[in-house]
Amino acid sequence: MARPTLTDVRDAAARIAPYAHRTPVLTCGALDEMAGNRLFFKCENFQKAGAFKFRGACNAVFSLPEESARRGVLTHSSGNHGAALALAARLRGIPAIIVVPEGAPPVKRAAIEGYGARIVDCANSLDSRETTAAHALEETGATLIHPYDNDRIIAGQGTAALELVAEVGDLDLVLAPVGGGGLLSGTAIAVGEVAPTARVIAVEPAGADDAYRSFRAGHVIPQTDPRTIADGLRTSLCDRTFAIIRERVADIVTVSEEAIVAAMRHIWQRMKIVVEPSAAVPFAAVLEKSLDVTGQRIGVILSGGNVDLDALPWRESE
Amino acid sequence: MARPTLTDVRDAAARIAPYAHRTPVLTCGALDEMAGNRLFFKCENFQKAGAFKFRGACNAVFSLPEESARRGVLTHSSGNHGAALALAARLRGIPAIIVVPEGAPPVKRAAIEGYGARIVDCANSLDSRETTAAHALEETGATLIHPYDNDRIIAGQGTAALELVAEVGDLDLVLAPVGGGGLLSGTAIAVGEVAPTARVIAVEPAGADDAYRSFRAGHVIPQTDPRTIADGLRTSLCDRTFAIIRERVADIVTVSEEAIVAAMRHIWQRMKIVVEPSAAVPFAAVLEKSLDVTGQRIGVILSGGNVDLDALPWRESE
Repeated sequence: MARPTLTDVRDAAARIAPYAHRTPVLTCGALDEMAGNRLFFKCENFQKAGAFKFRGACNAVFSLPEESARRGVLTHSSGNHGAALALAARLRGIPAIIVVPEGAPPVKRAAIEGYGARIVDCANSLDSRETTAAHALEETGATLIHPYDNDRIIAGQGTAALELVAEVGDLDLVLAPVGGGGLLSGTAIAVGEVAPTARVIAVEPAGADDAYRSFRAGHVIPQTDPRTIADGLRTSLCDRTFAIIRERVADIVTVSEEAIVAAMRHIWQRMKIVVEPSAAVPFAAVLEKSLDVTGQRIGVILSGGNVDLDALPWRESE
Repeated sequence: MARPTLTDVRDAAARIAPYAHRTPVLTCGALDEMAGNRLFFKCENFQKAGAFKFRGACNAVFSLPEESARRGVLTHSSGNHGAALALAARLRGIPAIIVVPEGAPPVKRAAIEGYGARIVDCANSLDSRETTAAHALEETGATLIHPYDNDRIIAGQGTAALELVAEVGDLDLVLAPVGGGGLLSGTAIAVGEVAPTARVIAVEPAGADDAYRSFRAGHVIPQTDPRTIADGLRTSLCDRTFAIIRERVADIVTVSEEAIVAAMRHIWQRMKIVVEPSAAVPFAAVLEKSLDVTGQRIGVILSGGNVDLDALPWRESE
């Protein structure tokens, strides 16, 4: 199958426009000073369901032909994709089934149920998750919407960068976090076409650096035993996202856990916005000087704002 | 002296325009649903120095004739007004002296020093504060800029409501927190002229309800022993602000500490923005049903976002 193109991203933008927020781009003099660069933050923490994930989920759900849509959609994710898919399905008026492993935070379950999705429990193992999902798919005839191994998802995630470039114009660099690679590959497709002089660089926690290692090895190396506070970035790339990333991403750099927590705190303190650890990862690279850049115009995708206010990372760290 | 008028507020808006942010007005479907009303949040947490206080300080500093400006400005405040005045003075290139009582949080001192102001320490008593300030005024010839007992400050604070009404149009109600009454009286002046059908209602913590009691008694009753987490609202009204409030404010209601913490948390969780306890006080009144309103268009001034991230109130409360 052909890879998604700028046309797919533009189609996604038109498809989700009635439902998704066109999120603001914020700047902050204090962070610019810290960074020695001019930063343009695309605030997907303000997106519906609290993260960029709604863009892809909405594009996937509204792309379905009426007949399959009626049978519903299904995914296994207790994170932002699960909530985003639940909301997108509700907006289209179709059923959503979210397979959630035991031990998932109650607040995440509540968000999914709040959007009217049906939760199916499974044990906390890949095997149980897949068996449970397969069973539910067979039973209902629903369509599986994978969080990133899906062209409609990738095209949808690319719409954030499209809006960013449309709003701020020329950029030297665009930074995105990388987990499964849906946001990163969508971003790279959009930026590569509408701002071809801007480099796209991905940032990944050192404690879950499969994309970094895969990029250097030239083939996908799955993540095992991820150790990072950035809960959205613990997953592995898939062949689909890796192919796009290999072709279009200039580099992948890693950051320490300390830099992620410090970056998150600076964003809260100075910008007065709530972002989740994963969202702070690109700014951490600027802070930690993992990137050798000064005086540049840098777009930063702030991926989401879903965080447990009872378990903030600086409680333990200070 | 005549009270400030809409003309003074408009003059202030023009004077501060090169320096202050025109802050965004945000809406949130989830909070609307909770509230049973349509809420328009004027985000002064995104204002320079993190609070609406910069508007008044900037207007006062840039209104000074050159000769007195050169001798500098002074205030006693370890809170948002101190930092705001320090920043406004730096922008005009004049000295600022901030009298800070011992025991003030190091983070607040650091903010004031970060803006280049000179800190003069005093003991933590009204007497010491006034003696220290008088001494420094005499020594330097600086101008005292009181945090709210000052017409330029009142006119400056009114510019937030002016922008709010210009952006969202007709409102049934505008809610502002009340401490010393500078924000409230400026808001009432602006709204009373540009949106005369909108009622202005003030909200105050029950644990620091001097404005509520003064409003009912018909004369200023000073606050003694305030007990509230809303640190910006512990001060008393003065005759200047009370005269305006009495004439132009429809009502004052109070809210519990529990409602303030819950409101603050909802705003962080659902809107993904950082606001300080004082800023959450008006929404607390909507949540707690201290106001008998449904289906209305309500403007809410979110006064500021300066909060100690190491001492969040829900740590203890849950």
